[in-house]
Amino acid sequence: MTAEVFKGRLITVQIDERGREVVQHPAASVIVAVDDQKMVWLVRSSRPVAEGSLVEVPAGMVDPGESPEQAARRELHEECGVQADRWEELASAYSSPGYSDERIHVFLATELRHVGGEEALGEIEGRLQAPMEEALELCSANLQSLAALLLAGRRLAAGGRPSHPG
Amino acid sequence: MTAEVFKGRLITVQIDERGREVVQHPAASVIVAVDDQKMVWLVRSSRPVAEGSLVEVPAGMVDPGESPEQAARRELHEECGVQADRWEELASAYSSPGYSDERIHVFLATELRHVGGEEALGEIEGRLQAPMEEALELCSANLQSLAALLLAGRRLAAGGRPSHPG
Repeated sequence: MTAEVFKGRLITVQIDERGREVVQHPAASVIVAVDDQKMVWLVRSSRPVAEGSLVEVPAGMVDPGESPEQAARRELHEECGVQADRWEELASAYSSPGYSDERIHVFLATELRHVGGEEALGEIEGRLQAPMEEALELCSANLQSLAALLLAGRRLAAGGRPSHPG
Repeated sequence: MTAEVFKGRLITVQIDERGREVVQHPAASVIVAVDDQKMVWLVRSSRPVAEGSLVEVPAGMVDPGESPEQAARRELHEECGVQADRWEELASAYSSPGYSDERIHVFLATELRHVGGEEALGEIEGRLQAPMEEALELCSANLQSLAALLLAGRRLAAGGRPSHPG
């Protein structure tokens, strides 16, 4: 038996049968987009944490009716104005399974084209590109970005082309 | 201006000045403990997610008055009965900064001794050891464990001894 103790616009809090407070939160897609110059596309996002904003890989929630990959394609375009011809899902994992059911889908996007149409600066406060090692430094305060970058680095180092043509 | 809309035992939910629902949650320490045979110590933990339990690296919340490293030492002992002579903090990062202030401290623990005294099975449903590549497979549904394992793998591959004697 679980009991709902808070219901907001985005998150719900339940007390589960073991008495644990559990947050229900929509899934999200996180994208490591690497261009032909091996630069990783990054954003600085407004976040409700002490720093006020963080450098991250592009990411966003999966909307109702969307697949994680559709969300990834939409977010990469909205946040960076970029389309990618090749997509590969590298992981599907819980961000913090001790108290939340939020599931994160990690994608590697390659064969990029900057097509424009990115949203005006707002929640996204800036855009930048960096080589992988520098991206790891820049994203050091976001564990999802770190995990995604490290998974992408392994995948790219393992060689071969991603397996799913776009 | 923020408004508190839910206060539980562990988590608090606020609406921030931008109208975002933000969870406040204690920090946690996550430990990659690697023994002299290069085996990683893992646990199967009861978690409030669809799978019911997940294989993870040892982890737990930082108690009031504890440092993250003290919490890491305590959790590794409680969950695995292991003490480590060498500790290194590899990252301090938000688990899901879009909606939570939970901060994760990632530690690499080496020079392990199994001293016993681990807690009885309960929330911890089992214990196992695995080589790094197998650990990554086993922990594939926990993004914090994946990030910690990948960071530890990089650190170990970079060679040298961890810099903080225990």
